[in-house]
Amino acid sequence: MKDDLTKEELNDLLLHATDQELQEISEYAHPVDILEAIHHLDEDDAKNILNRFPDEVLGRLMEEEEDEDRYEFLKQFSKDRQKEILEEMSTDEIVDFVSTLTDEQEQEVLAHLNTEDLHDVQELMQYEPDTAGGIMTTEFISIRENKTILRTLEYLQENGNDAEMAFYLYVIDKQNHLKGVVSVRDIITHKFDVTIAELTNPNVISLNVNDDQEEIAKIFDKYDYIMLPVVDDDNVIKGIITIDDVIDIIKEETTEDMHLLAGVDSDEKVDGSLRESIRSRLPWLCINLITCILAAAVVNSYSSTISTIVALAAINPIIAGMGGNAGTQSMTVVVRAIALNELTGENARKVFFKELGTGMICGMTIGLIVGIGCFIVYGNGYLGFVSALSMLLNLIIATSVGYLVPVILTKLKVDPALASSIFVTTFTDCFGFFVFLSTATLLLPYIV
Amino acid sequence: MKDDLTKEELNDLLLHATDQELQEISEYAHPVDILEAIHHLDEDDAKNILNRFPDEVLGRLMEEEEDEDRYEFLKQFSKDRQKEILEEMSTDEIVDFVSTLTDEQEQEVLAHLNTEDLHDVQELMQYEPDTAGGIMTTEFISIRENKTILRTLEYLQENGNDAEMAFYLYVIDKQNHLKGVVSVRDIITHKFDVTIAELTNPNVISLNVNDDQEEIAKIFDKYDYIMLPVVDDDNVIKGIITIDDVIDIIKEETTEDMHLLAGVDSDEKVDGSLRESIRSRLPWLCINLITCILAAAVVNSYSSTISTIVALAAINPIIAGMGGNAGTQSMTVVVRAIALNELTGENARKVFFKELGTGMICGMTIGLIVGIGCFIVYGNGYLGFVSALSMLLNLIIATSVGYLVPVILTKLKVDPALASSIFVTTFTDCFGFFVFLSTATLLLPYIV
Repeated sequence: MKDDLTKEELNDLLLHATDQELQEISEYAHPVDILEAIHHLDEDDAKNILNRFPDEVLGRLMEEEEDEDRYEFLKQFSKDRQKEILEEMSTDEIVDFVSTLTDEQEQEVLAHLNTEDLHDVQELMQYEPDTAGGIMTTEFISIRENKTILRTLEYLQENGNDAEMAFYLYVIDKQNHLKGVVSVRDIITHKFDVTIAELTNPNVISLNVNDDQEEIAKIFDKYDYIMLPVVDDDNVIKGIITIDDVIDIIKEETTEDMHLLAGVDSDEKVDGSLRESIRSRLPWLCINLITCILAAAVVNSYSSTISTIVALAAINPIIAGMGGNAGTQSMTVVVRAIALNELTGENARKVFFKELGTGMICGMTIGLIVGIGCFIVYGNGYLGFVSALSMLLNLIIATSVGYLVPVILTKLKVDPALASSIFVTTFTDCFGFFVFLSTATLLLPYIV
Repeated sequence: MKDDLTKEELNDLLLHATDQELQEISEYAHPVDILEAIHHLDEDDAKNILNRFPDEVLGRLMEEEEDEDRYEFLKQFSKDRQKEILEEMSTDEIVDFVSTLTDEQEQEVLAHLNTEDLHDVQELMQYEPDTAGGIMTTEFISIRENKTILRTLEYLQENGNDAEMAFYLYVIDKQNHLKGVVSVRDIITHKFDVTIAELTNPNVISLNVNDDQEEIAKIFDKYDYIMLPVVDDDNVIKGIITIDDVIDIIKEETTEDMHLLAGVDSDEKVDGSLRESIRSRLPWLCINLITCILAAAVVNSYSSTISTIVALAAINPIIAGMGGNAGTQSMTVVVRAIALNELTGENARKVFFKELGTGMICGMTIGLIVGIGCFIVYGNGYLGFVSALSMLLNLIIATSVGYLVPVILTKLKVDPALASSIFVTTFTDCFGFFVFLSTATLLLPYIV
């Protein structure tokens, strides 16, 4: 990546800039970079420079600041400036910000909003955070279809700057029902007297305020849109969702899946508190403990066999462990495919048999290696046979269960990442111990 | 989600549409939906309808078709139409398409391209697929800074339709060096006689043709851009990358991480062949087998202790298994945080001590449960003490190793997802067995 201003240059520029220069910097440098530079200055310098930026820039800096740090950022300014800064922010960002505050702080911030923003913010706050309503912003451009391009351009020149990604205009009727969409590109490539009605695409895809964020991400991805309108149940336009929100959703959903697969709460933060980590992980460890105890009970029930041949205690974890590994492989591929919509009704059968086949072939290969290894180490062909057979059976079970568990959970409307790994490893541990120790018990007279 | 046309309606419309109606449908319906509808028709109907669509629509349908199915799609048409369809496609899509073909098919397709496209495609094919050069398209709009807005608008009216996401124009000099960027929004909100130079933002962020895709995704995410220009080492503009490519990158990178964490090749497809699955997973299972054998060797070296107290063989896998679980938790949180740039030099120390603390507290809790459990089941306080202590130590090791392994791999410039789980579980297995069996051996006289 290349950027005409290096970080050091920007830092230096900010420190020595006149008001005029600060204005210019804020026009050319990206707010993310300005914020980064300011975070590297000492507190007094930072406060001094910030106070000399125009409101509009502060609004954008505030939007780039982490949700949790925004309150502190805002409190650096006088009450009047706080109002101006909040006015420059988009309503969805204000909602995200307010959601991190205590009730008292929330009241304080809301009191600074102008009537229109307050109305929008309070409406947005009613929606669940992971629905279209909770994600959307109210800064979109809507237009009536009888307007000409000339009138539209005049309107845009006045109002376009408030909107997020003003690349599409939404066409509405008198009651704000969504009637269609017009792109800015169409507007600039047609004559001034053409009406919006002539350019409108009426087949507009919209999201409902209650749509879940996972569903929203799939629609954006399928159609490659950069923004979509959000309507209520009466088809009245309420807001828009832009592609940058969707990237955040995709990242959040994947983190959730990865965490759940590992038995960690979906929203644990890497730099959260010790308390949060314990609360996120200890319950999962307790559930895992139960499954480990189950597996241990299987081992325990064969203790007389083990006391006869101690070698079993060493081979045992290999059979169970390899089953766990193979099951985790299948499960991960399937869970990820479900998330990406790649496992469909059409290919489900084929995928299942492929998993089964993978289990058989890997089972035969690994089984053979382990069998021969046991034969060499312990000089006992029967022990080798029992190990090889158990490995084969456990790996077949492992890949089947690795496929079936997430698929069945999905059918039951449970997140397939949620409990799959626990089910899969419980199966492979218990089954692995059972099949190995039971066949060893059967063939005990020959092994000893 | 709401769409004015249901799937059934679209199917029906397509089947009975006149040529005029087909034209209208293609203007209003999204190519993804048209393609889906066509896939549901029988072959003859599909071919018949497709042949009546304008070239432009076929080009867009071709872009929406899966890379692997494009050749078959294209071959439905006459040679002349194939040329027209390819002309409508963007060059990056042609490159993706051609990369799935045999050499013979590739020559055949390239022979259909016009001189300009052929030149662009051959240039793009030189770059690695996962670099900016391999991802970018050459359909961007560049403009010289001495042009007025009026001239620019005229130029756009003629050339704007070929470009992908024509929301930004890139300002260049005579030698095609990138000088800055102008947004379409700025153009429509200024007077006709303003020059591009007056609107240009010279602080344009650009990607280098050799930038890695993971880096590209991070830049897009950081700055919330929807498109970025790509330049060569001489700052000559070569192409653009758009946000839809970035979403594909993010998805691909996450699939890679999840697969690698589970010991599956990064590019295994859920509906790939059995052969591919075996090739992707068997080598990982073999590596895992080695670690399992290592752990088994630890158990084996304590066989005389186990033969004295068979209960150890049942408790053993609990200690090792819980260590594996706790280690996987820490490792997953850390690997994901590294991917999201959330683990920085600043918070690294804090995170490590948090992981250590989590290991201690979870270790004490789980250790206490297991210790008491062993005391109750086997009526032996020493055995309970050994189990509890081993669990505590193994969980502390587990969370530390779960943090350290991915962090060290990252420092060594190795993908932290790649080998972390193998290292972590090998550690927790071997250490778990060792600490439990060695303390049990030490206290053997008291336990028996």
